Amino acid sequence: MAKIAVVGGTGDLGSAIARSLVKAGHQVSIGSRKAESAAQHAAELGGQVGHGVNAEVAAGADFVIVTVPYAAQAGTLRDIKDAVGQAIVIDTTVPLVPPKVMRVQLPAAGCAALEAREHLGPDVRLVSAFHNVAAHKLAEGHGVDCDVLVFSDDVEARTEVVSLVASMGLRGLAAGSLANSAAAEALTSILIFFNKTYKADGAGVRFTGLTTAPPIS
Amino acid sequence: MAKIAVVGGTGDLGSAIARSLVKAGHQVSIGSRKAESAAQHAAELGGQVGHGVNAEVAAGADFVIVTVPYAAQAGTLRDIKDAVGQAIVIDTTVPLVPPKVMRVQLPAAGCAALEAREHLGPDVRLVSAFHNVAAHKLAEGHGVDCDVLVFSDDVEARTEVVSLVASMGLRGLAAGSLANSAAAEALTSILIFFNKTYKADGAGVRFTGLTTAPPIS
Repeated sequence: MAKIAVVGGTGDLGSAIARSLVKAGHQVSIGSRKAESAAQHAAELGGQVGHGVNAEVAAGADFVIVTVPYAAQAGTLRDIKDAVGQAIVIDTTVPLVPPKVMRVQLPAAGCAALEAREHLGPDVRLVSAFHNVAAHKLAEGHGVDCDVLVFSDDVEARTEVVSLVASMGLRGLAAGSLANSAAAEALTSILIFFNKTYKADGAGVRFTGLTTAPPIS
Repeated sequence: MAKIAVVGGTGDLGSAIARSLVKAGHQVSIGSRKAESAAQHAAELGGQVGHGVNAEVAAGADFVIVTVPYAAQAGTLRDIKDAVGQAIVIDTTVPLVPPKVMRVQLPAAGCAALEAREHLGPDVRLVSAFHNVAAHKLAEGHGVDCDVLVFSDDVEARTEVVSLVASMGLRGLAAGSLANSAAAEALTSILIFFNKTYKADGAGVRFTGLTTAPPIS
């Protein structure tokens, strides 16, 4: 059981992740820019779920999962930077540039995860993950046919997040350094393209041939 | 039956693709910078396989598949540029930067496919594909547990390549514009990372939930 803040936890992905974490028995708090909105979403998840503005819920957590749109990433990370302490920050940001969300448009830094590093500074324990999971599929709670790629330059933090993902009933795979997050971030546009082109209701990605990886559940 | 030139067809991926195309009944020619090397590799594939230097085999083909290392991409594309005419050029280049091949290092242009466009100019029909297929798995001929993402700004050319891929017994998926090739190119470093981390003998990628895509064979 871990203490987990979901920052931006009032959005689709944040709500779905929070719901899944509550189900897995973790102690979850919902963060938002607006305390009222956080309180409302927390109430929907049941009485045990905490809430507050982003920096409040980030303080004292074991994991801080950041689930905000790309346009809000920089501001949100700066808001929580001084509060996170030794918590592992899990950035889920996909650098989509509306309206062309089916087109891969990675930022000049290489990917949103490397930008997160810039926003948080060198001392925060940073991992990126959850780029490819369809929020509505996760929210439905019937399992998601999609691996979760987990990236970090901090191998210990990455391993902890792989375990956290597993506790949610998903297959987490260590996928290399933070720079490698570009692959998962880019894939999201491909999955959106597939949703339209191949009439998928939440396309996903699976990796094959991994002898020593956890089995697909 | 299509007339297909495999430029750089003496390398691991080129040889494997050529072998698979011959098996599928296509008329294949092997190209290399050195005529002798092309002739030798063509002979290994059987008497019906043509050979020549790259620009020679590219001339008159329906498809020209370019399978060279990133460092040779620019020179090779410039060599064939004036020879390809209305052929569809399929660039397979992954922008790996040795020795750190497990680290995603996309070029400033965004991806190798967009660089291919710069090298070939605006008039060549350009598609990118085959970034994630393990050459030795393809060469073994027992099927490959990996989808082939196919990218192009030319929808008609992209559709033709999806069909060509299918003729090889692989599942080709239209995955958007040439810029989206960044996703597949970046994935290759993830697959190399998986080969080491999860003891995979040729990790692959599959996409899930695609209602109207061809079934996995």
